[in-house]
Amino acid sequence: MSHNIAVIPGDGIGNEVMPEGVRALEAAAHRFNLDLSFSEFEFASCDYHERHGKMMPDDWRDQLGGMDAIFFGAVGMPERVPDHISLWGSLLQFRRAFDQYVNLRPCKLMPGIKSPLAGRAPGDIDFYVVRENTEGEYSSVGGRMFEGTDREVVIQDTVMTRTGIDRVLKFAFDLAMTRPRKKLTSATKSNGISITMPYWDERVVEMAKGYPDINVDKFHIDILTANFVLHPDWFDVVVASNLFGDILSDLGPACTGTIGVAPSANINPEGHFPSLFEPVHGSAPDIFGKGIANPIGQIWSAAMMLEHLGHVDAGKAMVEAIERVLAAGPENAPLTPDLGGKGTTSELGEAVAEAIKAG
Amino acid sequence: MSHNIAVIPGDGIGNEVMPEGVRALEAAAHRFNLDLSFSEFEFASCDYHERHGKMMPDDWRDQLGGMDAIFFGAVGMPERVPDHISLWGSLLQFRRAFDQYVNLRPCKLMPGIKSPLAGRAPGDIDFYVVRENTEGEYSSVGGRMFEGTDREVVIQDTVMTRTGIDRVLKFAFDLAMTRPRKKLTSATKSNGISITMPYWDERVVEMAKGYPDINVDKFHIDILTANFVLHPDWFDVVVASNLFGDILSDLGPACTGTIGVAPSANINPEGHFPSLFEPVHGSAPDIFGKGIANPIGQIWSAAMMLEHLGHVDAGKAMVEAIERVLAAGPENAPLTPDLGGKGTTSELGEAVAEAIKAG
Ligand SMILES: CC(C)[C@H](C(=O)O)[C@@H](O)C(=O)O
Ligand SMILES: CC(C)[C@H](C(=O)O)[C@@H](O)C(=O)O
Repeated sequence: MSHNIAVIPGDGIGNEVMPEGVRALEAAAHRFNLDLSFSEFEFASCDYHERHGKMMPDDWRDQLGGMDAIFFGAVGMPERVPDHISLWGSLLQFRRAFDQYVNLRPCKLMPGIKSPLAGRAPGDIDFYVVRENTEGEYSSVGGRMFEGTDREVVIQDTVMTRTGIDRVLKFAFDLAMTRPRKKLTSATKSNGISITMPYWDERVVEMAKGYPDINVDKFHIDILTANFVLHPDWFDVVVASNLFGDILSDLGPACTGTIGVAPSANINPEGHFPSLFEPVHGSAPDIFGKGIANPIGQIWSAAMMLEHLGHVDAGKAMVEAIERVLAAGPENAPLTPDLGGKGTTSELGEAVAEAIKAG
Repeated sequence: MSHNIAVIPGDGIGNEVMPEGVRALEAAAHRFNLDLSFSEFEFASCDYHERHGKMMPDDWRDQLGGMDAIFFGAVGMPERVPDHISLWGSLLQFRRAFDQYVNLRPCKLMPGIKSPLAGRAPGDIDFYVVRENTEGEYSSVGGRMFEGTDREVVIQDTVMTRTGIDRVLKFAFDLAMTRPRKKLTSATKSNGISITMPYWDERVVEMAKGYPDINVDKFHIDILTANFVLHPDWFDVVVASNLFGDILSDLGPACTGTIGVAPSANINPEGHFPSLFEPVHGSAPDIFGKGIANPIGQIWSAAMMLEHLGHVDAGKAMVEAIERVLAAGPENAPLTPDLGGKGTTSELGEAVAEAIKAG
């Protein structure tokens, strides 16, 4: 079985880490005898925007819709194109048009990586954030009135649907069933956000009835962020709305010291559309061009992609290779500066690719 | 000059820590010769709700409106009254009806308190969160449609006004001007929340023009929460919308290990209405009744109240007394269990009151 993979480097360090992601995939393909073919696209970047006045060609759905997966770098160069233009013109379009309603992000303390939290060691932190990825607070409904006057007002609607909430909850509960602890935490704010969040809570209660083995709890988002710092060991699967999931899936990797390393999967679980795999980090204009960006988030995202495509062994082997290289430490592996080493993007990428081949 | 202070213990441990807050105020009044009088109110509690079917009497504005300040404990007992009923029926009403549009929350690493962050010591973390407190994501506009069907949808509007944003920004910039570092950080999410947050950013740019001495930066809320953990020393004054400020002002104290200790001020800067002072922690039903709740958040809030009422020396003396007792450590002071000690609420309250008197 062959897989056609769309490769979209995007902006900034997306262009530097993407070749390492592809190199790691080729190493895994070689070892596990997979048939992967890659098609690179230059759109969904601010370069493209500058040439064409828009982020993507009109037929982007046709170009990408038939692919088996989208392997994505990073998008956004706020000095050149305002973020809400570049993001709503690309990444956020993909998520919605391809109904990638689950954004799955592991938060795992990896060997060799120092957590900013005192006294935490690998094994202590290992959970998933399951983020709703198509509706909620990321809404295109609203507007501005009385522009330029003292009465100026902006309104943006948070929109949540039963369908939209239930399907991401189901994914999260199913994921929790596969985990030894069988624990699910819901992120809410029903004490302050008085219409949408109480409804979210209701749907969690309803869904939980079908999963009597799951231990369910909930926290308001304010104290939940506090608990990520104070008690990261409490969490197993955390399910959250689009905005709350966005926050928690940056904060979680920050607590594990892996913000430059963390991967994510934007999944259409039914497989009607291609799913999209991207590192959690952004385009990092501040370090772009120096060749020191950490490629591990991109490579780990590739591992999630192979698992999604059915090659669970290959995906696991890639993560193990990452862990081996990280555990070797900056003395013995060409780790990038953010990991305390002196390696370049391609040196670290090559080391991981070698580790994948070596098995 | 005498001050009439409304005392509202509210729910749960609010009832346990409030007497210690009043005791500390009396100690400060004695030492600094202040004339404080206290009127206690039993409404704004779930007990009151159970007796009267509502959180407050109809004439609550008349009863409280003439007070010089409101000293508040905590509200909410979700097992008895749903949070959105109890909060929208009391605390959130006060904030809005009394136009307490600034919620001011110090995040400070105190002596004797262990930060959950590795390698941070007192002096490393010392910033303020300035939260918009009357509009934004905490909105009463929206509703539910197609109830009970698969098409069910809930909508809640985020509403931001030029007036509402500008006045809280002005407070934050003015506060930054009083600080040695003169640094202001704006919390945004204009890459994803595409209507309201770009407007927020615009107003920040506009306000900054009037403060050329202030060093202004901004972060999206996701990476900002990560930076609270990774680089808490970066921050001086952080200004945020209602929801983002809510999150940051729990996360900040969590990073300083002071979630049970942190105070807050809900301020109407013009003094048209009474301002309200309350600990950041909630009613904590899980420890209520044991007499071990930490009263320091309540006492520190009292200090903010005295400063607001013009008694800056008295407020500072109260904070110094808190710092002295905390620095003594659990061996030498009756610190509560959350601080590693064996003290009770009233033992710790008494120790702080004595320290205030001793000066
Ligand atoms: C209790 C709740 C409604 C409240 C809020 O969200 O404002 C609290 O978290 C706070 O920060 O004062
Ligand atoms: C770039 C931004 C729009 C995006 C989001 O908020 O979803 C990013 O933060 C993410 O988490 O993938």
